[in-house]
Amino acid sequence: MPVKDYTIQHEKLAQAVQILNEQNVDAWMTFVRETRLTNDPALGLVLGEDMTWHSAFIVTKTGKKIAIVGRYDGDIVKAVGAYDEVIGYDQSIKPALLDALGKLNIRQIAVNYSESDAAADGLNVGMYNSLKRYLEGTQYELISAEEVLNHLRGRKSPGEIARIRSAVKLTEQIVESIGDFIKPGLSELQISDYIHGLFKENSVTPSFTPTVNTGPESSMGHGGPKGDLKVAPGHVVHIDLGVVLKEYVSDIQRIWYVAKSGETSVPEPVQKAFDAVRKAILAAAAVLKPGVQGAVVDDASRASIIASGYPEYKHAVGHHIGRTVHDGSTLLGPRWERYGNSPYGIVEAGNIFTLELGVMVEGYGIVSLEEDVLVTDNGLEWVGAPQTEVMVLRS
Amino acid sequence: MPVKDYTIQHEKLAQAVQILNEQNVDAWMTFVRETRLTNDPALGLVLGEDMTWHSAFIVTKTGKKIAIVGRYDGDIVKAVGAYDEVIGYDQSIKPALLDALGKLNIRQIAVNYSESDAAADGLNVGMYNSLKRYLEGTQYELISAEEVLNHLRGRKSPGEIARIRSAVKLTEQIVESIGDFIKPGLSELQISDYIHGLFKENSVTPSFTPTVNTGPESSMGHGGPKGDLKVAPGHVVHIDLGVVLKEYVSDIQRIWYVAKSGETSVPEPVQKAFDAVRKAILAAAAVLKPGVQGAVVDDASRASIIASGYPEYKHAVGHHIGRTVHDGSTLLGPRWERYGNSPYGIVEAGNIFTLELGVMVEGYGIVSLEEDVLVTDNGLEWVGAPQTEVMVLRS
Repeated sequence: MPVKDYTIQHEKLAQAVQILNEQNVDAWMTFVRETRLTNDPALGLVLGEDMTWHSAFIVTKTGKKIAIVGRYDGDIVKAVGAYDEVIGYDQSIKPALLDALGKLNIRQIAVNYSESDAAADGLNVGMYNSLKRYLEGTQYELISAEEVLNHLRGRKSPGEIARIRSAVKLTEQIVESIGDFIKPGLSELQISDYIHGLFKENSVTPSFTPTVNTGPESSMGHGGPKGDLKVAPGHVVHIDLGVVLKEYVSDIQRIWYVAKSGETSVPEPVQKAFDAVRKAILAAAAVLKPGVQGAVVDDASRASIIASGYPEYKHAVGHHIGRTVHDGSTLLGPRWERYGNSPYGIVEAGNIFTLELGVMVEGYGIVSLEEDVLVTDNGLEWVGAPQTEVMVLRS
Repeated sequence: MPVKDYTIQHEKLAQAVQILNEQNVDAWMTFVRETRLTNDPALGLVLGEDMTWHSAFIVTKTGKKIAIVGRYDGDIVKAVGAYDEVIGYDQSIKPALLDALGKLNIRQIAVNYSESDAAADGLNVGMYNSLKRYLEGTQYELISAEEVLNHLRGRKSPGEIARIRSAVKLTEQIVESIGDFIKPGLSELQISDYIHGLFKENSVTPSFTPTVNTGPESSMGHGGPKGDLKVAPGHVVHIDLGVVLKEYVSDIQRIWYVAKSGETSVPEPVQKAFDAVRKAILAAAAVLKPGVQGAVVDDASRASIIASGYPEYKHAVGHHIGRTVHDGSTLLGPRWERYGNSPYGIVEAGNIFTLELGVMVEGYGIVSLEEDVLVTDNGLEWVGAPQTEVMVLRS
């Protein structure tokens, strides 16, 4: 195992103690096993390594950090260096867990479940049933860690912000290479293969399967690039991509217009759509401040794009990015059932969101943009340079 | 997205229908969202792609296969080509789900939770709570899919067996290169780096962090290779590694003895330990047949190693391999609490297990072996060539 940097886990555990105090929650426990099989997204924050047997990572309001793990996993947890105590066991976690909890003078234990927030919903039903069985007849009360995790994932630490900046920077370089590569005759699939090649060349993995769309026949869904859809003059080419660099991601969308021979300006329907999309993103950016509710940000961009005469987008205008491309917590999204409570969350300083939406332009293709932005107490910062005009490709 | 081969998903869904009939369960549902964040290990079997919004994959005893997914994920599910019906939705999965279930004439719905089997425990608590809320006041009864998944993951399909064979074959080539590389003076870390290089060269990822141990000071745990532990004459060098090739894994352990100058044979304590370990693996192999209980296989090897005068190993003698290196289902393990029901499962034809155990030899190092074996109706097949003698390195 190459020696790793656990600065971020140390930062996040310190933040967790602070958040437990803000929320007045006695303790928070991440309870996992076989994490290569069923990952709890909280584990990356509290450990940054995989575990095999039942493992409990406990943080208390008073600042205690205790790990209880299978004997073979003990060394690696010690190497992370973030826990005051690393307790190993052989046959069952139950006695060690009850013993450790007994020393903590706590009642509530927040565990990772949430209907609204997938990133706070890492606890599996069987594991929860085991935990309830272990704690039968004790004074402990299991509550949802939704609020704890919401703030913990959302408030990016200095280490996390630095890594996301690096991921966005690399993505911008990759986008530049893609712009140089695109030319009439290339299929969506060829461009996609080229993008995968760029990822490989830069030793990064995609943060999600990149999307490539060319022209009016291409699908806005995630159906995958087509070998028979080829770039042609008059097309809008759209990409949606991101990388994972040192465990943190980027997520951006860009468009190009492929000029027809003799064409001197971007066709009016494309320019008009671009302006409307850009305007809607700026409308969201204008209200994206600490203290505002997620849904209110979505309201702003949704109202803007509708006012510009386009249909509303069928998703949220923004989501957190971090260790994953949909990083849970507060969503800048509409008040729809499937989003649960997430649009009702409050934006905080340190949040890094996408701002994204698009429209289909008949006869040309998909005009859709996505920017990554950092919320600070002193205003919004664009992480990377936003796309402010249609990039034109001439052959 | 490169065009993918979904043969295995088609094979597994056909098996699922058969297993639902064997178990007399009306229907099985995999219920997921944001699967890059919280993976349900069943999803690889029924889809082989990631999903974003709440998604339900339903298989019935009568052979119906229905997917209900967010509108943007519809195309990719259709591309998999394994579902009779792919239903898209925008705001909430609930109406589409209730509508689809209403047409199926079912009562029981098996969902993915299990205390014993991590691979059958992919349903998250928040998702389960949402599902119970959706189904309130209906006739449906949610039950555990543990037994369904146990058999489904365990019985490897022809496509799965072929892929595991390829992964093991490549791993054997990698082990050969490692043997050529090891020499006195190299640290565990240098050997580990070399192994990671070989993985990269072969365009595969490790199925788990590979272990490298040299000499008597090295730790049997997963503490990671050390830069200050260097190969020296008289050491046993031990590796535990596997690859993921086309989504299926290998998992093997090998040892070498580094001869001292003038030494003509393997020192007696090392040879004796090797023979005892090999004998214990053969003892397990001798009883590993369809119909036998997992724990009985572990009993055989545990009794053997103790009879040879060594301490018993602190783990199971074998686990399934497949899409992951601990592939859930029946465990060839002791009847310990943390293993739940898994050692009580029954071995079936088509199962691919590891057989693995080791001992520490004072003054020399870790002597531990691991083989991958396929259970068939006509006896056990070693997937790859087992290590039958101590490999000796001479400088």
